[in-house]
Formats: sequence, structure tokens, C-alpha cells
Amino acid sequence: MKKYYLFTPGPTPVPPETLLAMAVPILHHRSPQFASILAEVKEDLKYVFQTKNDVLIFASTGTGAMEGAVTNTLSSGDTALVVRAGKFGERWAEICEAYGVKTINIDIEWGRCVKTAQIAEALEKHPEIKAVFIQAHETSTGVKFPLKEIGEIIHQKEDTILVVDAISALGAMEIRTDEWYLDVVVAGSQKALMLPPGLAFVCLSDKAWQFVKKAQLPRYYFDFLKERKSLAKNQTAYTAAVSLILGLRENLKRIKEEGLENIIARHQRFSLAVKRAIEAMGLELFTKENPSEILTAVLAPKGIDAQEIVKRLRAYGIIIAGGQAKLKGKIFRISHMGYVDEQDLIMVIAALERVLIELGYSLTPGIGVKTMQKIFLTS
Amino acid sequence: MKKYYLFTPGPTPVPPETLLAMAVPILHHRSPQFASILAEVKEDLKYVFQTKNDVLIFASTGTGAMEGAVTNTLSSGDTALVVRAGKFGERWAEICEAYGVKTINIDIEWGRCVKTAQIAEALEKHPEIKAVFIQAHETSTGVKFPLKEIGEIIHQKEDTILVVDAISALGAMEIRTDEWYLDVVVAGSQKALMLPPGLAFVCLSDKAWQFVKKAQLPRYYFDFLKERKSLAKNQTAYTAAVSLILGLRENLKRIKEEGLENIIARHQRFSLAVKRAIEAMGLELFTKENPSEILTAVLAPKGIDAQEIVKRLRAYGIIIAGGQAKLKGKIFRISHMGYVDEQDLIMVIAALERVLIELGYSLTPGIGVKTMQKIFLTS
Repeated sequence: MKKYYLFTPGPTPVPPETLLAMAVPILHHRSPQFASILAEVKEDLKYVFQTKNDVLIFASTGTGAMEGAVTNTLSSGDTALVVRAGKFGERWAEICEAYGVKTINIDIEWGRCVKTAQIAEALEKHPEIKAVFIQAHETSTGVKFPLKEIGEIIHQKEDTILVVDAISALGAMEIRTDEWYLDVVVAGSQKALMLPPGLAFVCLSDKAWQFVKKAQLPRYYFDFLKERKSLAKNQTAYTAAVSLILGLRENLKRIKEEGLENIIARHQRFSLAVKRAIEAMGLELFTKENPSEILTAVLAPKGIDAQEIVKRLRAYGIIIAGGQAKLKGKIFRISHMGYVDEQDLIMVIAALERVLIELGYSLTPGIGVKTMQKIFLTS
Repeated sequence: MKKYYLFTPGPTPVPPETLLAMAVPILHHRSPQFASILAEVKEDLKYVFQTKNDVLIFASTGTGAMEGAVTNTLSSGDTALVVRAGKFGERWAEICEAYGVKTINIDIEWGRCVKTAQIAEALEKHPEIKAVFIQAHETSTGVKFPLKEIGEIIHQKEDTILVVDAISALGAMEIRTDEWYLDVVVAGSQKALMLPPGLAFVCLSDKAWQFVKKAQLPRYYFDFLKERKSLAKNQTAYTAAVSLILGLRENLKRIKEEGLENIIARHQRFSLAVKRAIEAMGLELFTKENPSEILTAVLAPKGIDAQEIVKRLRAYGIIIAGGQAKLKGKIFRISHMGYVDEQDLIMVIAALERVLIELGYSLTPGIGVKTMQKIFLTS
């Protein structure tokens, strides 16, 4: 007998009720039944994105919508500012480069946060910057970025938009799309929206839609204007991933019922509990600045390979993530995003204690769990 | 109480066992468990594609992989020959145009088939043609194209590849990728592979991979080389649509068990039964040349709007497709692709009889069903 428990920052666990909601006979994507489902989903997505604008839905993973965010707003030879503070910041730069967009990169040490002043300075120095690309939360390092402050700066500039990869943030962290002047916000299904991978979302401000009109980069599948026209008729331009959208409907209902503020507070509470437990175990948190409530990134103790911790936890059925790219072997990441509860977190910390002891790390059994229990009992 | 029965040429019904196989806890896409599933799927896809080459898997619908087939094989300013014999032929041309590929179009009356000689002639006249784009089966008209003959011609040419949209064909019609020299074959999950929408597939010949090396068009999410490298490690480059791939594994097993030849024979038999029943009802088949075994396209009787037939069938829970673009209102299409059995077809013909009688069409009740019964009894 073997059970598996998923604590990776995407995909995340899907509620069993939602899995069953998707296991129903296939609806046709042009049927009135499906149109009424899409109408419902369309409204509820606005709530999660905190926007008045439509949220486009693509059958793809988040990266596809990231590509669309570039190709639908820019032209060849345009200049973009990219905050590269981890693997996903690098992805923005790669996509821009693939399409002949010039990039000015602000390179941040992985695990640290960009300063708003750095962005202001770059914009000052390079008035030709058409778009600033950033993450809401850099999944590879666990850092969240000061979107509100950055949004305020870019809002002042008529010819620059702010493009945010909120794939591992939306629905777990505060993201006020309209209020914070986030011009393009990209999200994915397999994170805090608690769905299987396969859907991507993108929301554009009125300002960003003006950019779309002028953008000359080639695009077809990820054509935002075409999708917007279809969505106005409660359709998608191409065949919708109907079963995932049925699941989305369920989870959006669930999110509205709990309330975004409560969900965010829950993530903050869980994050605190995991981080304190980790520290109580004598481990060092990797994320030095602006640690997110999405995941906890931990430095492997001296002499222990982080991948070995990940591997040994897997033997107990606990699936966490290692480090990506240059952080591989150095850190491990425990996600507390989405469909995760207190009992789950007790379990992952207990298993981590066992694995560390197995690996010869000096630790009083129960110390992490005890710390977590105290937080859960008192907060 | 209301039941729904799906007879559209995508999405198609998904076997209930497969729906449940997808309703299991989410696997992580970088886990060894998932890698072993992908390894299995990779082999079984080769069987369905009748190829020795790897079949790439994308989280998208077929159109995304069609776009990838263009951007991964061509460069800006290249010339492509496009067979435009319906809505999906037009899509090839649109994608080429979106990326600055010059198109020479062979325009065929909708419902008719391209002649191999027309392609040979165009290639003769325009030696600069780098790629020929065609459908295996044009879903909008129900015509299938002589791929084997076309493949033989293009195989002679060192600098030209044949790119086939087999989205609504693969797994139902004969498609011998390697034997017929089909250089690029695109497929989708929601057709004869009996899955929900959300996966696209593409298979490239060695010759096509040589084109990929030289292709300069921009691409990122649909990067075939990157996917090939990942697939070699039993991974996908970006987050895999894990639940759909679990369903795919089930359906590929099912397909191997029945055997491709038997599946093709079943589709041919069903197609014959539907077409004869339609004729017995005094209706006219729309597809004049090379009608496919995938679907039956029918001209609405004089004075009756085809959309009205579609709509009234829906009231009985029978979901069929109308005509697309310029055929809207003129034809209706009954799919007999994928997870469809004899009883289903009896039901759809019986319902069609009722609807036609309601609409004032002169018809002896039972005539279509009787004809179908006879075929099922004797073949």
C-alpha cells in the first residue's frame, strides 16, 4: 500500500470532488450548455483576478500564455525590461529573445528581491522600454515582488506596460490586478486554482489592449484579440478544454465560498507555520527577502544533497520539489499552496524530520511538529 | 431527466473508465512514476501513428501543434503550398500568413477532393515550395485526401516536406506515417483518441527534423526540438497535462487491444451504415468525392435549415455538428468516430427521422433505422 501526497508548487492537489466533476460525459464546446458554464466561469475569474476585465482562457500551460503576453503586446525590435531573479524571470527573457524583442535584464541574486527603485532607474535610463516583465512570485526562489509599487511607477508611463507572471501566485497571494495597475496578468490552472495542468489564463488592462492593437509579432494559437471576441460570445476561439473548465467552475465556486481574503490569510498562516517549524529544526530558509506564502524554500544542511532529501521523502509518499537549475541539490521547496490543510503540513514536517535523522542530521524528533502544533493551536 | 449523446467530430465521447482513470490524485510531472507512464505512452503513440519516430505531446489543442508544424519547419519568406478544401485547409494558410510564409493555395470546392496531379503540377511550377500543407481528413466537409499518393510525390523532392493535419483522422482512418512518407503529422486528443480536448501530438520524419534545424520562424511554447530532448528523458519541456496523459494511456491500451486495422474497419462499417441510412431517408450526402469514414456530412433537405435540424436533435439529447463557415445552415454532420457503437448510431438515425418528420419532411418512419439494421445484421 502506498499513498502519495503532493506538496510541489505546481501541480498541486486537486480536490476529489473536482476530479469527479471533471469525470462526466464530454460537453461540446459550441453547445449552449457549455456557453452557460463559460459565462459563469468568466465572471468568477474576474473575482479571482480582482478585475473588471475579461480573463482569457487557453488550453495550454502557463508558459503558452506567457508567450502570448509577449507576442500580443510587442513588435520586433521593441525593448523590454526583464526582472531576472530566478528560473521564471529567465523564461520571460528567453521568450522575448525568441521573438526578436531586445531585453534589458535586471539580474537579481536568486533568493533576493528586486527593488522598485531599480525598475524606476532602468525606465528613466531607457525610455524606450515598452514592457516590464516580472513574476508575482518567483517559484524557483520563493520570493514575491512588490507589484503594487512597481505598478504605480509604470502606470505613470503612457508607453510602458507591466506584464506579470502570476502563475504560482494567483488565488493564493494578494494580486489586485486593476487596483495595482497590472496591465497583463498570466495564471495557470495547476497552482492555487487547484486543477490539473492544462489551462492558462491571461487578463489585460485597457492600456494593454491598446498595445495589442499595435503589436506586430506573429501569433496564431495565442491570439488575444481573437479569444476576446470569442469570449464575448461565451466561447473559446479553438476547442475548449471542456473537462478542465468544468473543474475550474467547481474550484472557482469553492474559492468564492471561502473568500479570497480568507484564502490569502490561510496561506500566510500555513507559510508561517512551515517556516517556523523549519527554523526550529535548525534549518536555514533560503529566501532572504520577501518570502512568499506560497512555498517555503529551504537550504539543505551542510553535507546533505537536497535532492537526496526530496528522494527520501518520496519513499514516504511525500512529494516536494527540489531546487531548479543552479539551485538543484542546494535547496528543497515545500509548497503550501491550494488544496492543503494543517494535517498535511504536520505530515510533511514529520516526514522531513525522519528523513533528516536518517541522513545523519542532528535533530530532536518532534521539534518541527511541536513548533507547528503551537502555531496552529494559538493562531 | 435528460441524457446527452455526443456525435460531433470533436470532441467525441470519452469511455467512462477513462474518465475515472483521469480522476485520480495528481502526479507530479517530474516524478519517476509519471516518467514511466510517459515512457509507456510514447511507445503506444508510435503504434497509432505507425511510425518509428517519437511523437511529441503538447498541452494545447490541435491548432497549437499546427502552428508549431509551421514555425518549426519554415523561415520567413519561405513558400508553402496549401490545399484549401475546407475550413481547416484555410487554417493552414492563415497560420502561414501570420508568420510571413508565402502561400500558394490550391482551392478546392468544399466537399470535393484535391487531385494528386494538381499537387504535382504546383510543385513543378513552383520549385521553391518548401512544404505542402494538407488535411488527412477535412472535418468541415468529410473529404479524405490521397495522402499515400501525395506522399510518394513529395518524397522524391529533397527540399519539400509534406505536413498533414490528421487531427480528426488519426486512430480512425488509415494513416501510415512512415510508409507513406508523411513528414509531419499533427493529431489531437479529442477525436478518435477518445479523450477530452487539451492534448496535441506531432510526429516528424527524419527529413522534417532536418528542416527543423534550419527553420528560423520564432517559437517558444511549441518548440519541437526542446520537446524532443525532454521526451528522450520521458518528460515534457513544460508542465505536462498529467491527467489527460493518464487518460491517454488508458485509451492507447484500448486501441492496441482492439487493433488499429479492426478499428479502421469498424469506422468503415459504421460510416457505410450511416450513409446508406441517410440515403434511404431520401437525403443527399454532401461529400461528393472521397467521403471519409469519420463522419457523414448531409445536405439539409430543400427548405429546411440545417441548423434547425441540429437544434431539434439537441432537444432529444443528440448532439451533432452543423456546417462550418459557408456551409452553416446548409449541411449537418454526424460523427461516427471514436467511442461510438451500433446502438448509438441506431439512436441518432431514429432521432433524425423524428426531427425531419417534425419539420414537415416526407419520410416513412423507420426507413433509416431499417436500412441500418440490415447492414448491421449482414456485415
